Amino acid sequence: MEAMDYDVVILGCGPGGLQAAVHAARRKVRVLVLGRPGASSLARAHVENYLCVPGKAPGEELLRIGREQAAAFGADFREEDVVRMEGPTEAGGFRLDLEGGETVLATAVVVATGVQRRGLGLKGEKDLVGRGLSYCVDCDANFYRGRRVAVAGDGSAAAHGALTLSRIAAEVHLVTREPATSPKLLERLGEAGVRVLTGRGVAELVSDEQGLRGIRLDDGTELELDGLFVETGAKGAMELVSVLGVEMDPEKFTYIVTNKNQATNIPGIFACGDICGPPFQMAKAVGEGCVAGLAAADHVRKRRQEAGGGDP
Amino acid sequence: MEAMDYDVVILGCGPGGLQAAVHAARRKVRVLVLGRPGASSLARAHVENYLCVPGKAPGEELLRIGREQAAAFGADFREEDVVRMEGPTEAGGFRLDLEGGETVLATAVVVATGVQRRGLGLKGEKDLVGRGLSYCVDCDANFYRGRRVAVAGDGSAAAHGALTLSRIAAEVHLVTREPATSPKLLERLGEAGVRVLTGRGVAELVSDEQGLRGIRLDDGTELELDGLFVETGAKGAMELVSVLGVEMDPEKFTYIVTNKNQATNIPGIFACGDICGPPFQMAKAVGEGCVAGLAAADHVRKRRQEAGGGDP
Repeated sequence: MEAMDYDVVILGCGPGGLQAAVHAARRKVRVLVLGRPGASSLARAHVENYLCVPGKAPGEELLRIGREQAAAFGADFREEDVVRMEGPTEAGGFRLDLEGGETVLATAVVVATGVQRRGLGLKGEKDLVGRGLSYCVDCDANFYRGRRVAVAGDGSAAAHGALTLSRIAAEVHLVTREPATSPKLLERLGEAGVRVLTGRGVAELVSDEQGLRGIRLDDGTELELDGLFVETGAKGAMELVSVLGVEMDPEKFTYIVTNKNQATNIPGIFACGDICGPPFQMAKAVGEGCVAGLAAADHVRKRRQEAGGGDP
Repeated sequence: MEAMDYDVVILGCGPGGLQAAVHAARRKVRVLVLGRPGASSLARAHVENYLCVPGKAPGEELLRIGREQAAAFGADFREEDVVRMEGPTEAGGFRLDLEGGETVLATAVVVATGVQRRGLGLKGEKDLVGRGLSYCVDCDANFYRGRRVAVAGDGSAAAHGALTLSRIAAEVHLVTREPATSPKLLERLGEAGVRVLTGRGVAELVSDEQGLRGIRLDDGTELELDGLFVETGAKGAMELVSVLGVEMDPEKFTYIVTNKNQATNIPGIFACGDICGPPFQMAKAVGEGCVAGLAAADHVRKRRQEAGGGDP
């Protein structure tokens, strides 16, 4: 089976990957975007803070529009994940094995796979995302003005999330087995009126056709809620690139380190969006995608010139 | 006259400034946006490469929509420029004098003033922008597929622009007094079929109601064109902040240097968009604006806590 040959291959088709595809394809290089739209955290979100798209736009619809834009500029799409990646080869390129068994060769790779948030693993959890359940306080807090909410999680992300919500929601609970936060932050939680429920976890999500109605804790406590925020930390899906030696952040080993050009330490590998770290915002992913797409196309051009093939 | 008091003041209301306003205002800090929409380079552009806004969207309309979004989240607007800026004060804030004589106090400042492109200074030039005349090859090249275009300018930006256009347009001229580019780049221009007209400048823009029809050079040569790109370099409007000691790029002293948080070397001053350097793209400005807005709001919060005022 002959390998498919592309200039720029983009892993992930969320907002970062799609914007990278738009900008690379406009530079007249051959672009392939891999991945499933449903895998983007945007697919289950509503967006109101992305400039020039007012209202609470459904993420699924935004992904469809962005995909059409990138396709119109010439980007190809395959709804497949990469199972293995090798390189750089002697010629400087990369070899990507797809889940279906095919192989793709790429001169440059843009990693835009996002981060996989660890959920609670409870029954009905997936169906409630965007209907009362959220994994991002910064993204969705504003939808809960004057409402009753809880945050589940032990780290400082959960505590900070509860603080943010205390300025917006009417009632905020923090459900935590053992708060892994500074005493000062705990003190501020108290001052802000956050009800901290320690030594407990969420045992059950209570819902009806409308969405989430409340939660039951593992000590039997029941809370009536309009929203639950799960802030248990974020884990990047970076196994693929870490074997190539791509540098990760030294503190958490969760995010890919890039320079201002969205280039990693491995020539030819670029990254954009949530996998480069917070803030987890569509606008930030799109901005980085623009820069990554242009930088990847420039890399391809440079390689062509070095190879003496000219710049058609 | 009493000074107005704000948490975050944003200089400039192009896409970077507006996205910064959206994200800062959502963090519940008091936000003021200064500047005139017409001063943004977006005001005279059409955008087709910003994700999820398909078609050739008129920049003026995009600016209006973005402004309404930021206002809906609580940002205030004043159509005034800053004539002087002082700080940081002992308390860490800044004092901004407006052109109308009023004064604004700010805890954090986001500089999003863009860059002023130096034009040709010819009769009718302003009116033809977006109607056959462009200052950005990367932005607008795609609108000239199969058409006749010229690039005016002496530097490598002009030569690179002509190369990019040679892959898209049917006919490309480079009008240059004296090409300030490497011999290799000139060679590539020849190979790409670009017609280099040296020792000459653009003397006149020929137009009708439809827009630009061609140019007349100062040696009398007339060229029939569908598009003219002016790439004479970009100059940042940074006099305001440079007196405060804000670091600029060491090569050109044209752009503000920021870290990944869009923070400058002066605590409390952030920057985003074109003034931070290329690529001059709406998507990149919006991404940086998101990060700058959140970082400025965080700075305000931190200052409040240090001042012992708590975090309401």
